[in-house]
Amino acid sequence: MTRKKICVVVGSRANYSSIKSAMRAIQEHPALELQLIVTASAVLDRYGSVVKLIEKDGFKPHARVTMLIEGESPSTMAKSTGLGLLELPTLFEQLAPDVVLTVGDRFETMATTLAAAYMNIPVAHTMGGEVSGTIDESIRHAVTKFAHIHFPASPGARDRIIKLGELPQHVHMVGCPRIDLVAEILDESTGKISDQLFDMGVGERFSVEEPFILVSQHPVTTEYGSGEAQITATLEAVRELGLAAIVLWPNADAGADDISRGIRKWRERKLDDRMHFFKNLPIEVYVNLMRSTACLVGNSSSGLREGAYIGTPVVNVGTRQNMRDRGDNVIEVSYDRKDIARAIARQVEHGRYPMNPLYGNGTAGKQIADVLARETVSVQKCITY
Amino acid sequence: MTRKKICVVVGSRANYSSIKSAMRAIQEHPALELQLIVTASAVLDRYGSVVKLIEKDGFKPHARVTMLIEGESPSTMAKSTGLGLLELPTLFEQLAPDVVLTVGDRFETMATTLAAAYMNIPVAHTMGGEVSGTIDESIRHAVTKFAHIHFPASPGARDRIIKLGELPQHVHMVGCPRIDLVAEILDESTGKISDQLFDMGVGERFSVEEPFILVSQHPVTTEYGSGEAQITATLEAVRELGLAAIVLWPNADAGADDISRGIRKWRERKLDDRMHFFKNLPIEVYVNLMRSTACLVGNSSSGLREGAYIGTPVVNVGTRQNMRDRGDNVIEVSYDRKDIARAIARQVEHGRYPMNPLYGNGTAGKQIADVLARETVSVQKCITY
Amino acid sequence: MTRKKICVVVGSRANYSSIKSAMRAIQEHPALELQLIVTASAVLDRYGSVVKLIEKDGFKPHARVTMLIEGESPSTMAKSTGLGLLELPTLFEQLAPDVVLTVGDRFETMATTLAAAYMNIPVAHTMGGEVSGTIDESIRHAVTKFAHIHFPASPGARDRIIKLGELPQHVHMVGCPRIDLVAEILDESTGKISDQLFDMGVGERFSVEEPFILVSQHPVTTEYGSGEAQITATLEAVRELGLAAIVLWPNADAGADDISRGIRKWRERKLDDRMHFFKNLPIEVYVNLMRSTACLVGNSSSGLREGAYIGTPVVNVGTRQNMRDRGDNVIEVSYDRKDIARAIARQVEHGRYPMNPLYGNGTAGKQIADVLARETVSVQKCITY
Amino acid sequence: MTRKKICVVVGSRANYSSIKSAMRAIQEHPALELQLIVTASAVLDRYGSVVKLIEKDGFKPHARVTMLIEGESPSTMAKSTGLGLLELPTLFEQLAPDVVLTVGDRFETMATTLAAAYMNIPVAHTMGGEVSGTIDESIRHAVTKFAHIHFPASPGARDRIIKLGELPQHVHMVGCPRIDLVAEILDESTGKISDQLFDMGVGERFSVEEPFILVSQHPVTTEYGSGEAQITATLEAVRELGLAAIVLWPNADAGADDISRGIRKWRERKLDDRMHFFKNLPIEVYVNLMRSTACLVGNSSSGLREGAYIGTPVVNVGTRQNMRDRGDNVIEVSYDRKDIARAIARQVEHGRYPMNPLYGNGTAGKQIADVLARETVSVQKCITY
Repeated sequence: MTRKKICVVVGSRANYSSIKSAMRAIQEHPALELQLIVTASAVLDRYGSVVKLIEKDGFKPHARVTMLIEGESPSTMAKSTGLGLLELPTLFEQLAPDVVLTVGDRFETMATTLAAAYMNIPVAHTMGGEVSGTIDESIRHAVTKFAHIHFPASPGARDRIIKLGELPQHVHMVGCPRIDLVAEILDESTGKISDQLFDMGVGERFSVEEPFILVSQHPVTTEYGSGEAQITATLEAVRELGLAAIVLWPNADAGADDISRGIRKWRERKLDDRMHFFKNLPIEVYVNLMRSTACLVGNSSSGLREGAYIGTPVVNVGTRQNMRDRGDNVIEVSYDRKDIARAIARQVEHGRYPMNPLYGNGTAGKQIADVLARETVSVQKCITY
Repeated sequence: MTRKKICVVVGSRANYSSIKSAMRAIQEHPALELQLIVTASAVLDRYGSVVKLIEKDGFKPHARVTMLIEGESPSTMAKSTGLGLLELPTLFEQLAPDVVLTVGDRFETMATTLAAAYMNIPVAHTMGGEVSGTIDESIRHAVTKFAHIHFPASPGARDRIIKLGELPQHVHMVGCPRIDLVAEILDESTGKISDQLFDMGVGERFSVEEPFILVSQHPVTTEYGSGEAQITATLEAVRELGLAAIVLWPNADAGADDISRGIRKWRERKLDDRMHFFKNLPIEVYVNLMRSTACLVGNSSSGLREGAYIGTPVVNVGTRQNMRDRGDNVIEVSYDRKDIARAIARQVEHGRYPMNPLYGNGTAGKQIADVLARETVSVQKCITY
Repeated sequence: MTRKKICVVVGSRANYSSIKSAMRAIQEHPALELQLIVTASAVLDRYGSVVKLIEKDGFKPHARVTMLIEGESPSTMAKSTGLGLLELPTLFEQLAPDVVLTVGDRFETMATTLAAAYMNIPVAHTMGGEVSGTIDESIRHAVTKFAHIHFPASPGARDRIIKLGELPQHVHMVGCPRIDLVAEILDESTGKISDQLFDMGVGERFSVEEPFILVSQHPVTTEYGSGEAQITATLEAVRELGLAAIVLWPNADAGADDISRGIRKWRERKLDDRMHFFKNLPIEVYVNLMRSTACLVGNSSSGLREGAYIGTPVVNVGTRQNMRDRGDNVIEVSYDRKDIARAIARQVEHGRYPMNPLYGNGTAGKQIADVLARETVSVQKCITY
Repeated sequence: MTRKKICVVVGSRANYSSIKSAMRAIQEHPALELQLIVTASAVLDRYGSVVKLIEKDGFKPHARVTMLIEGESPSTMAKSTGLGLLELPTLFEQLAPDVVLTVGDRFETMATTLAAAYMNIPVAHTMGGEVSGTIDESIRHAVTKFAHIHFPASPGARDRIIKLGELPQHVHMVGCPRIDLVAEILDESTGKISDQLFDMGVGERFSVEEPFILVSQHPVTTEYGSGEAQITATLEAVRELGLAAIVLWPNADAGADDISRGIRKWRERKLDDRMHFFKNLPIEVYVNLMRSTACLVGNSSSGLREGAYIGTPVVNVGTRQNMRDRGDNVIEVSYDRKDIARAIARQVEHGRYPMNPLYGNGTAGKQIADVLARETVSVQKCITY
């Protein structure tokens, strides 16, 4: 029997975490064959060479495609998408996949989706139907309008996909595959964080036994130019409370330079804070930090998704996660320093929340593989109203 | 007062006909400034140098961008979109438009839309919300999910855009700007078609006083590879009825080579038909042919849109216009030669239909300019449910 | 033992004929492994699907890359080169060749050469050092300045490469691999041309027993816009002499549209000439036509190269082959109709010339494979003066 | 009278310094009109926003083109060239220049040159004919083979261009336009360097009255992967001598990441050296540092060129400047730490050298403008042998 060929295109570290359990399930499924293309920030040293991690995990990329144009501005985001669209068709012709599986809502997802859909290859899409703000919002729904099989991560997302005119029989609420990894990590690890952590990154060292804050704040593409002020307010709030903190550098979206500049300037002020800065953290470490931290501050989607499952106290700053489904563990605040500080204080006092399966129960990857193995679709899509 | 800059990107002859009246209204509006980029098939000799026509009409292109990659296959359609995405950002940075206005559902529309939306430039979109089949279906709805101002051409289309989660206050049912041109042509012309018409194109000459058929059949991208058989069935049906016919070559979609090959092989058989073949026709001539023809056969959207306004008897073949709104003037048939012949015979007997304003009353362009002048939008979009 | 990987990039029918015998010799060499990428006009139906022919000959392309941008103008030639440069690096990374072997002087050769040289992959180049006029002239010498191993086809070409500052030990005069094919065809075929030839192409049929002219005229990129007048003068000269003729359509260089328009208009004049027109001819047929024709007219390099070996009487029109080495079989003329006619008459009277090994003796492919197997080069090039 | 349009494409800070005086002379010449496109690293914040400096100097860019693909590897260098080739033709069509003037030997120079030459626009080229090693060597000579007017900077370079088969009447030895700037700066400035210099950059502060070393070391593209060891050896040599030093970060060539990593690791070792690190320095500051430094160490071409005019003692490390013309002020060393240290010690002892006009006398820009105004060329090039 010929196995159905499923091609996954991975474009970033976050992307990989969001699809890894599905990749593994596809690779192990007797009726499926996994094909892999790695691209965008996932092939760059500067973002931690995710492609090497992928290979270490036992996956074999068919091709590595550099496609990010320097500048990290709105216009280079458009041009980078164009580069992806120029290269992926040749690779899809080499691979002739039966289905292309794409993740989420980053701009490289749009390139993957358009290349496949224009070439009459059915598209399967994870994490559609969510509401978030930023250009990701439009990208996500546009990808839904090209996709043939949908794997939303939450009930609200599923309902939205159907309202967008997609056929209900092709919409499968499987939860988020990132939760699969989180469940696995929580199972396998003691939760202890070694102080060796601080051999990586730069900045102060402190004991992770004491309460510490975790900061993860990314640019909001539609608020281009405000990133520096935004991250500075957050760092000031943390400092004001006198708590130690682990601070992550931003992802590669337009505006990342603003956030990075804010962090660099903060560091050059050489305040007597107790902060340690990391470019990237292994997912295992990150999940354990989410389990240990007194509070996660910023605008990372992990606070809402993984946070629900882990029970992490979260202070979500600004508009980036607007309207994404969230549990009780999240407090919303504006970009105001005082608001942020007050909310952190409340969360530190509250402590960890009970587990909430809002974004999945740890079996998403397996469910995705099973659906891909059994479901056939017509390439010709049609809106249902 | 600074005028609001509206940038229109025109990619094909059909595109131009669909936006020309709006371009003129924008150019004449005191509060607006028209910016123009011409690209895709509109800059190519092979498709009749539409850019020269545009200049003759008094518009000044800021840039001409070749972006079509040879091959006319699904993969070159994806790559051509990529090329557009690589070049448009530099031009948008030169022009700094306040709004980008894009038309319909061709693949170059996707490039225009993504470039503008990623660059935080509000997107206005004409002819969204329609249902048609082919990849155009997905492109159209995806563009809607990126667009900030919507100009649907029919009531059904307006309703669908709102169901897709767009804000009703930004959805303006103005009718189709092509109907503006049609109305103008019908007003200004006697309707007489000169026999000099046959100095252009190749094939037999006949008197346009006698009943003649008009054939316009394009590839269906999701039925790639079937075009030759499809056009041959249509030509055989026409020949069987013994009627003279004017046959148009297909547009530049993936699969056009198939249709073209079908036509070439037909011509090489040197049957004693009375057919004349044209690569392109001036819109004035085409509208007058639609007014005079005994029946328009094929799968051109003009049968449904302009046909409604003009009252042209139409036989619509196959799936390309699936579910697009249509009036009484259209009979649907499969790709079967006999079905096609039977339907043509019925339409020839019926004759012209009364006018139906389903796709507009001839003021779309002016309405579009007025809305663009007064409406302000937030770049940050959000789904309404 | 690991075999040395030699990657060949084939971009056109002429390209393929120029490298096929070397490809076969590489494939059969115990110390070498052949890698193949097919691109540019060689992957397009419109140019006769050379890639299918390549596969039929037993070669397996690693990838097919569409890279020609429609328009056939000087600017699309530049952009198409850019497309090649965008896609080839990803494929070279997949293949990791030890040497990239590139052919001649077309614009896709430049893309292949730059991609390889920038990536520190040694470049081997056939047919360098020749002098021809047109932009090909500059491309050819520029490729020489990037190439590490040189395979000139004639003694004059070898001397020129050394004068350009290349190391003599890396310059190997092997003759032209096209002559290998010519020698093989002349050996294996009776030379008889079947009248079935005329089932292909369009136009008049005639007996190939009687004297006939062969016309092959391509655009001169630096004389962009003059092609129509040039081909018309040639066709008129042929018609004036009252001889039957086989006429080939031009290649894909900038300006091809001009030549094509000239041919189309000529055909529409429906003169009582005896001309038959072909888009492409199998090389076997073409060589036999060169052996049989009373005179080859135009500006194809085949007149000078293959013509020398076969002894074909040639009238070389205009500047395209300026200064390329040539034997006694060639008469030079301007674009003037009368000059052309007079020269044809002289050649028809003279008849076939004796064989001249100026461009090789039929063993070029084998010599190339042997050199590639034994020669090692330093990636760092340096001019010798 | 219509002025002759001269289009300059500037791609980096070094590029700009090398052409600025010619740009000014063109702008001021009554028979010439300056057109400007800014691209590559010159439009990026990360490289100090050279485009803003250019505008401050009174030049108006027609377009800014991002074209660098992230990764700084050999393959992204090829792809970035491809991007340039895709975008420049559209801009050249907008501008319709009479001559394109391009600088030196970086990969974006190749894109500029190919785009212009393929489009039949005459190319003028500065700084051709030099010998340097690295891929720049091949690029420079290949550009010469496409260029129509040559402006070599030294007598040896002029001779080499003529040997490459270029017409002597189009080869004008004008000196290097960077020397024009150097001459101007030396004239206008007292040579005093303010200690405020150290408010920029990072690292230790020291008095610039005491002897200090200037380090400027770039990647060697053909030694990809060795950059970290190379820069480390240089820094160790400097530290060993106990001298204060100003260290510059590398340019954007393939391999820059290696050098940067070397510098970052050096800094993290927190040795008790006295080094200050700069991403970019204004040319005025740099020239004054070259006048004041006890010794310039590394592989920057400025040591050979500007160094000759200024009389800077230079230690040139490794192969990057192999065979470039140099004066008495330069000592050559390998990548060996001890060799480097010994040579620095010798130069520190020797002190400043007398001025040497090897690379020009400060009037290159004016000479270039004059030649461009009076010289006409044929687009069709031909090798002279």
